[in-house]
Amino acid sequence: MTQPASLLVVRSVAELRAAVRDWKRQGLTVGLVPTMGALHDGHLALVREAVQHADRVVVSNFVNPTQFAPTEDLARYPRQQAEDARLLSGVGCPLMFAPAPEDMYPEGFATSIAVTGPAMGLEGDFRPQMFGGVALVVTKLFNQVQPDLAVFGEKDYQQLMVIRRFVRDLDLPIDIVAVPTQRDEAGLALSSRNAYLSQDELAVARRLNRILAAAAADAASGRPLPGVERDAYAAVLKAGFERIDYVAVRRAEDLSVFRDGVVDAPARILAAAWLGKTRLIDNLAV
Amino acid sequence: MTQPASLLVVRSVAELRAAVRDWKRQGLTVGLVPTMGALHDGHLALVREAVQHADRVVVSNFVNPTQFAPTEDLARYPRQQAEDARLLSGVGCPLMFAPAPEDMYPEGFATSIAVTGPAMGLEGDFRPQMFGGVALVVTKLFNQVQPDLAVFGEKDYQQLMVIRRFVRDLDLPIDIVAVPTQRDEAGLALSSRNAYLSQDELAVARRLNRILAAAAADAASGRPLPGVERDAYAAVLKAGFERIDYVAVRRAEDLSVFRDGVVDAPARILAAAWLGKTRLIDNLAV
Repeated sequence: MTQPASLLVVRSVAELRAAVRDWKRQGLTVGLVPTMGALHDGHLALVREAVQHADRVVVSNFVNPTQFAPTEDLARYPRQQAEDARLLSGVGCPLMFAPAPEDMYPEGFATSIAVTGPAMGLEGDFRPQMFGGVALVVTKLFNQVQPDLAVFGEKDYQQLMVIRRFVRDLDLPIDIVAVPTQRDEAGLALSSRNAYLSQDELAVARRLNRILAAAAADAASGRPLPGVERDAYAAVLKAGFERIDYVAVRRAEDLSVFRDGVVDAPARILAAAWLGKTRLIDNLAV
Repeated sequence: MTQPASLLVVRSVAELRAAVRDWKRQGLTVGLVPTMGALHDGHLALVREAVQHADRVVVSNFVNPTQFAPTEDLARYPRQQAEDARLLSGVGCPLMFAPAPEDMYPEGFATSIAVTGPAMGLEGDFRPQMFGGVALVVTKLFNQVQPDLAVFGEKDYQQLMVIRRFVRDLDLPIDIVAVPTQRDEAGLALSSRNAYLSQDELAVARRLNRILAAAAADAASGRPLPGVERDAYAAVLKAGFERIDYVAVRRAEDLSVFRDGVVDAPARILAAAWLGKTRLIDNLAV
């Protein structure tokens, strides 16, 4: 496979489509990695995976306002497009698509997408705007790029399930590829929001994955889930988190609850907790 | 342009996509005409228009449950797929796509689309489920077929505006082509629901377009719209309609109201009225 040497940064859908059309005319396949920028090794792992599956990879870099509630961190979300472009040119990505918010959502914009099923509960309870916003921007990006496949991380596990759901429901002709969560040497899930953490907070944050791993083992042993979740909740607070949105074990397939209160099918443990103004999420297979 | 002699009827997305892929490999362009079947000359005009713009035309034939309210005429909506297929083979359509409801909306389906803007008011007030259902099924059909263009009738003028809106908002890479309303010799807009009308009701129905034409001339003359609409409303009742949902003059571009109460830009007059259990709609340029 030949790789273009340099990274093209495009801001308009017209330029984007011209580049993709060119590739398709050459019979090349196209992969998309949607991001909100502030790229770290977790994103680069997605790009490397995309490069394995597609001849050309587009990375979109867009902090999507429709998935943030007014109270959330849209304004302070880290933005570093020049650095992002530098990182991408090192991993075989030929095109970064960085549209302007006013081009994505021009005046008169009137369409929204809602997802139930896997979008209900967990993040859906605490960030009710998010999955609709994600479904909208991902649908737009899919239609703008028209890739053969798109790559998402398991770090946002519920988001991944939601995306698989609406891709199937809307018949979007795109394969969804999932990549395991990338972690630092202490097991902390890589996240653009880790940049908000002080050194002390970082030390606390690094305990989350171990607590979840212990709870996952506990759940896998057949212990009733209310006890598993209660103990994990207490352990997360004891580790130094100030507030917990949820710690929950759910069916891996669709994030529905285990009605009998024990794990009797593939499962996932998921958590969201706060350190100061920073909200961290993580999840593991049970 | 060569035309295949016979009509293929396919029921699965896999078969549909295989046929379309085949055409695209040959470099042929593809047009889509979404219908709910019960085809009449109005639909055939859409197909003939599509044939002018695309090398191959797919007509979808699906009575979409998500755009009917529980109280509406989903169950009695006319269905005549064999006759539809016969009609289509006469106008150069090589493929009718007639999916099953359980394949379009399988168990676990969890996605919906909402449109504001041009979907607000008029039909949106009286059939609140409709445009969301239309947006959903049309988005699905667009993603299933992946046509270069799709053809819709001006008969459903507000629907046409809604479709143009969400196609732009979701960046669907499909050209929307509009076709003027087809009418019978008395000017009655052709509609599958005309089949519900008795002979007496038909005579009344045929008066609607003339009343709207007179009102449109009235509005175009600069007369204040409240008076125009009030007189048209009275005339529709006097003609024999039993109930009126709306008679309204709106901006042609986005169906917003004329704030100053007079026509000072391209306009459209739109109406919905009842004869027995049958609801008829029509519209004309002002």
